[in-house]
Amino acid sequence: MNTVILPLPGNEVLANSLLMQPALPGPAVRGELAVRAFPDGETHLRLLSNVEGARVVLVATLDRPDAKLVPLLFAALLVRDYGAAEVGLLAPYLAYMRQDTRFNPGEGVTARYFAKLLSPHLDWLVTIDPHLHRIAALDQVYDCPARVVHAAPAIAEWIATEVPMPILIGPDGESEQWVAEVAALARVPYTVLGKVRHGDRLVEVSSPDMAQLVGRTPVLVDDIVSTAHTMAETLLHLRQMGAKPAVCIAVHAIFAEDAAGMLASSGAARVVSCNTVSHPSNEIALERWMAEAIREACASSPRMRQVD
Amino acid sequence: MNTVILPLPGNEVLANSLLMQPALPGPAVRGELAVRAFPDGETHLRLLSNVEGARVVLVATLDRPDAKLVPLLFAALLVRDYGAAEVGLLAPYLAYMRQDTRFNPGEGVTARYFAKLLSPHLDWLVTIDPHLHRIAALDQVYDCPARVVHAAPAIAEWIATEVPMPILIGPDGESEQWVAEVAALARVPYTVLGKVRHGDRLVEVSSPDMAQLVGRTPVLVDDIVSTAHTMAETLLHLRQMGAKPAVCIAVHAIFAEDAAGMLASSGAARVVSCNTVSHPSNEIALERWMAEAIREACASSPRMRQVD
Repeated sequence: MNTVILPLPGNEVLANSLLMQPALPGPAVRGELAVRAFPDGETHLRLLSNVEGARVVLVATLDRPDAKLVPLLFAALLVRDYGAAEVGLLAPYLAYMRQDTRFNPGEGVTARYFAKLLSPHLDWLVTIDPHLHRIAALDQVYDCPARVVHAAPAIAEWIATEVPMPILIGPDGESEQWVAEVAALARVPYTVLGKVRHGDRLVEVSSPDMAQLVGRTPVLVDDIVSTAHTMAETLLHLRQMGAKPAVCIAVHAIFAEDAAGMLASSGAARVVSCNTVSHPSNEIALERWMAEAIREACASSPRMRQVD
Repeated sequence: MNTVILPLPGNEVLANSLLMQPALPGPAVRGELAVRAFPDGETHLRLLSNVEGARVVLVATLDRPDAKLVPLLFAALLVRDYGAAEVGLLAPYLAYMRQDTRFNPGEGVTARYFAKLLSPHLDWLVTIDPHLHRIAALDQVYDCPARVVHAAPAIAEWIATEVPMPILIGPDGESEQWVAEVAALARVPYTVLGKVRHGDRLVEVSSPDMAQLVGRTPVLVDDIVSTAHTMAETLLHLRQMGAKPAVCIAVHAIFAEDAAGMLASSGAARVVSCNTVSHPSNEIALERWMAEAIREACASSPRMRQVD
């Protein structure tokens, strides 16, 4: 069965480098989908590749998700109309995973709602480090099979190559589990700070223990960096304590507002991220792991078993 | 059973005037839904009203639809989570109805796709003059019961009151059916022009017969006015022919780009619209008919029959 890699707008670079990965189930080709807006704001799609009988891998990262959902679901329905045998989604960043409980009365678990909108249209889903906190696994909210790629090995590899004498710093308890994993893989020490959130942008973080920092380069790691207020506050603490200039690593560089600028002005020596959300800081490439996860997702898809 | 009128952002004025309509199934109250964007672009919703056991009427017009769909479907899922017994949608303007066939290879029938995304979450749908052309009725694409409000009576009433000696002009064959209806209700003559579309913005329209125009005020009527290129070209023809300054009426004033300005500079004496898409030109109010259609939709909803 042919694999057609079909990027939504903005995902072309990732789609092209995915195609170079030997792990991808093949034969794999690049598909073309033309997407434009009518003057009235509606989306026009035109499929320019043959997908008859093929496995289609839609590639669409889902930061700033609302305006992206209609084109993405239209694309899923479109390729099925044109005979695709299987439709999977590689969403390097999966939206709404942080809204995983009712924090206040009247709120909804939009992580669950978003999953309800996506699932019916997909045979499988591959994503990178979704924010799994109160929801323990994606299959608790997604009805389609879902596979998670962990960025930790690639981040550990990058740190080992690029940062001499590092110490990893996680911003809060939610990050401990996987900061510990990166530290173990890179064989370096780590510490985790406390965080109290007072609003979308107002956060308070505790200071690390100076004794741990002597002679080491602090490496701040977080899964999602949005406004970067947490990271910026930690950078200021570190500077006040006389620590070396820190390296900031984000799995998902959402970088809302002027996040990257704020990190630079707060004293970050370097700001790097994985290539899940396209940004100039993308230095850590995950295509190899994404391709492996796509292969595994295809192999375990119920629709595939039926076809084989 | 209580009726809770719950507007999505931008639909508050319409929701409030709907509440004044005696035809609304009651007792009816206004519900409050707070919608805001997180810094990362995700939507946060909070329901501030009790909907337990109630019929909820979501009010959301769907021009510029893509960014509106996620908040709307989240709202539908949210009110069900909080115990709503019935969830209907008043969408005065229904998006994607013009994409009702594959005009070119590789295209999809997005009218059908959009319906597939909305239908599973709604017990019923009420809309005003959807663009039914190649799709003959909404139930061919929507799986939930749908009721259509016709703007023709309100438009005919407005013309009879406001325009002495009018002649109605429809821009193309697609408009004939309902321009004829408005003309019959207002007891005035009408004519329909030919139109050839060369692109999103480039259209060619034929000229009306001057003999019909003598002593009369041309009233251009169309269901959807988006870029207004068709109406503007017709206005220029009329001016060249020496006709009186024309009145332009849109059911749905999408008014993309500078549509309203273009109509004014092309010689329109007045530009008016129905209140389906909020715009300063909204002079023709349809709440009375919307309320009646909501009452009928509720009465015929399978879920309601079960509850009663």
